[in-house]
Amino acid sequence: MAPQLEPFFKQVDDLSGSFIDRLRKAVAIPSISAQDENRKDVFKMAQFLASELEALGAEVEQRPLGKQPGKEHLDLPPVVVARYGNDKNKRTILVYGHYDVQPALKEDGWATEPFELTVDDQGRMFGRGSTDDKGPVLGWLNVIEAHKKAGVDFPVNLLCCFEGMEEYGSEGLEEFIQAESKKFFKDADAVCISDNYWLGTEKPCLTYGLRGCNYYSVSVSGPAQDLHSGVFGGSAHEPMTDLVNILSKLVDPKGKILIPGIMDLVEPMSEEEKSLYPNISYTMENLHESLGSETGIHPTKEETLMARWRYPSLSIHGIEGAYSAPGAKTVIPAKVIGKFSIRTVPNMESEDVNKLVFDHIKSEFAKLNSKNKLDVWLQHDGKWWVASPKHWNFTAASKAVQQVFGVEPDMTREGGSIPVTLSFEQATGKNVLLLPMGSSTDAAHSVNEKLDKRNYIEGTKLLGAYLHYVAEEPMNH
Amino acid sequence: MAPQLEPFFKQVDDLSGSFIDRLRKAVAIPSISAQDENRKDVFKMAQFLASELEALGAEVEQRPLGKQPGKEHLDLPPVVVARYGNDKNKRTILVYGHYDVQPALKEDGWATEPFELTVDDQGRMFGRGSTDDKGPVLGWLNVIEAHKKAGVDFPVNLLCCFEGMEEYGSEGLEEFIQAESKKFFKDADAVCISDNYWLGTEKPCLTYGLRGCNYYSVSVSGPAQDLHSGVFGGSAHEPMTDLVNILSKLVDPKGKILIPGIMDLVEPMSEEEKSLYPNISYTMENLHESLGSETGIHPTKEETLMARWRYPSLSIHGIEGAYSAPGAKTVIPAKVIGKFSIRTVPNMESEDVNKLVFDHIKSEFAKLNSKNKLDVWLQHDGKWWVASPKHWNFTAASKAVQQVFGVEPDMTREGGSIPVTLSFEQATGKNVLLLPMGSSTDAAHSVNEKLDKRNYIEGTKLLGAYLHYVAEEPMNH
Repeated sequence: MAPQLEPFFKQVDDLSGSFIDRLRKAVAIPSISAQDENRKDVFKMAQFLASELEALGAEVEQRPLGKQPGKEHLDLPPVVVARYGNDKNKRTILVYGHYDVQPALKEDGWATEPFELTVDDQGRMFGRGSTDDKGPVLGWLNVIEAHKKAGVDFPVNLLCCFEGMEEYGSEGLEEFIQAESKKFFKDADAVCISDNYWLGTEKPCLTYGLRGCNYYSVSVSGPAQDLHSGVFGGSAHEPMTDLVNILSKLVDPKGKILIPGIMDLVEPMSEEEKSLYPNISYTMENLHESLGSETGIHPTKEETLMARWRYPSLSIHGIEGAYSAPGAKTVIPAKVIGKFSIRTVPNMESEDVNKLVFDHIKSEFAKLNSKNKLDVWLQHDGKWWVASPKHWNFTAASKAVQQVFGVEPDMTREGGSIPVTLSFEQATGKNVLLLPMGSSTDAAHSVNEKLDKRNYIEGTKLLGAYLHYVAEEPMNH
Repeated sequence: MAPQLEPFFKQVDDLSGSFIDRLRKAVAIPSISAQDENRKDVFKMAQFLASELEALGAEVEQRPLGKQPGKEHLDLPPVVVARYGNDKNKRTILVYGHYDVQPALKEDGWATEPFELTVDDQGRMFGRGSTDDKGPVLGWLNVIEAHKKAGVDFPVNLLCCFEGMEEYGSEGLEEFIQAESKKFFKDADAVCISDNYWLGTEKPCLTYGLRGCNYYSVSVSGPAQDLHSGVFGGSAHEPMTDLVNILSKLVDPKGKILIPGIMDLVEPMSEEEKSLYPNISYTMENLHESLGSETGIHPTKEETLMARWRYPSLSIHGIEGAYSAPGAKTVIPAKVIGKFSIRTVPNMESEDVNKLVFDHIKSEFAKLNSKNKLDVWLQHDGKWWVASPKHWNFTAASKAVQQVFGVEPDMTREGGSIPVTLSFEQATGKNVLLLPMGSSTDAAHSVNEKLDKRNYIEGTKLLGAYLHYVAEEPMNH
């Protein structure tokens, strides 16, 4: 055990009541970035964080990001950046989190007031932002406070980057990260982000990969306006007929992508990678529970997790322009736009994927011999990210998990995207680690969001222990 | 020429100004059946019609239909029934029309106030309800008035049935027609409905057939709630994947229905029926104009009209439950409901069609080997209707067209439904004729609805002439 951990851990336990109070104060500020009327609360939350960090002795700045694009009457919330420690002999760790939250209304179905932290007898701390992402952000502050009060030397220089627009597309952050890469972030030796979740409820995980996403629209149009199906049915090419035909050629019912060449872009599975899966704490029951059904495609947990994390998938999201209301309407829609996306993985480059998608759809449409007009385009893309789980940044985190929780963490990837991860990797050139605090049942973005007291307090210990191990870990990259 | 027509025609011309005034008064009453707040206007319009008919010497009743189902705070508008003449030596003709209208707001894009009849220098009379169906309804009143003022003996006993809920599903009418079949309607020798449109703008038509419509929903469901495509894509059966697959197996891009057995139900084309098509005043340019594009399926007008009128068609209308908004959302919808309908023709019986549809869809779904759940059901059906165009009712109308317009009418069918047609046929057991007044450019249900002065005035002559010829025509059925 690293010599300094025992007094730090004890101090965290002693301060647990005040750490929960800190979270209570933060949750009470409805810093909803998506709602104009709450923008002042987002600023208030930035000020709260800055004041707390200053009181702990950090050098803090609230960096303005200018006006909100498209909503120029609103100022973007600042990025709260802080430096704690400036010792050339210590490693410097950059941590990211966000202090804005999703909208929440009691009447959405919350059992408690969403902006009042409410702790039940099982230690579940309910409140909007408790787990996403105020708890983890405050975790870093708690770590500083516990070190100070325990008289333990802080093991690293800590750089904090806390943004206030994460739940609204991280407006302005990408440019900020780029601009500061050789300035405020230049000393960073590694990056740690605590803004995702354990795979289950018992075992922590370290996350080393995320899929990317290429989102497409395919439109078919014919008549100048919607037609009555009684009057015109049978005499005109119908855009919906063509579109469902095309959409049916994208993916089969078992999830196999039917676009030729796509699977050739996927990096083959190495034996080393394959060996990570059997140990992961996950069962088919976990899948069925989260689906609320037994409609999983694959028979084993390994195949299921691989399909989710390291293979691409294609989902058809819906159709714009067709009749989508309940009831019956006898319309022939004049123009319909299918929406689908491909989750991408190494080594799928966006341009290569686009070309294969466009060629396939155009070729399938040509086979229809329709007089309608086809168009297909990329709506947006975001690249996949995979870090090496053998990097010292991960090794340190793994040791910290074993120290605090007594288990080896699951080495996980995620199927979705956290774009800031790639932004930090590209801007700093350093290893990025995703080190979650919350568990799979925390209901981020949903009603009754919560963070378990155990995850918050032991999670604070984990973040602190990670900083100790990362300070000591020999460089291997 | 029937001896009595000349003075009648002259009287119609002399009264044309007052006939237009009558239409102006009717259009000024916003008798919108779909809007609760206009229900009083629908009643006002019933009273207007009843008063006008009484003033002309008809026996009139406003028959209540009770409360509106599902909106019990509203009374259904009455059916205005009237009898003009009660001579056992004359034929009795039952005419139907409706006095309610579609909603209309100036801001929808009307060039004029929708409830002020506005006549432009080309004789186009703009106003909501002008062509659908107040003009044709008042046509019958105009016929009575012109006969009285010209001192011409009225050739038939006329029974009127004018309803006030046609634009809202003819609530209560079906039962009323059934109930009155052996009472108020018992003397009817034939039925005439003026509530559709010429195929073009120059040549009148007589309509002898309508397609039916079977409207289906097919749902596929899997997970208990919508899923995030990043988190679950590739690991769960996606309902949208299955649904687009099924929808793609219903109809090919050239409109060919892919459900086995459907085409076997269709009555073969007789030589006699085939011979009606070449003479019809319709061109491919007419089709392209109404489509606003050149995306017609068939190369000739004959094939186009046959596809529309006497062959079934299948249209896919849309999907409920999938993402239908503009933009991008990375959702895996948990339950999606496809909507499609089949336009039916002789001799497709609804139950036979349903069985073929259900069997085909279940069989296609089984091929997918999906763990999702399928459901398919009929939302509603309405039967096709075909009358004999050789019946004396049609022969009389044809002679009237030749008399008034100097051309033989097009013998048409329509692709859509007018359910009341079949109701009258079934309730009275008599031949039903659709005798339109308006033209294809009248924009019923749309902005800038209009009725051309020529169609209204010559149309009034046509309705009167029809009554004279129908009085004289030898019985052939």
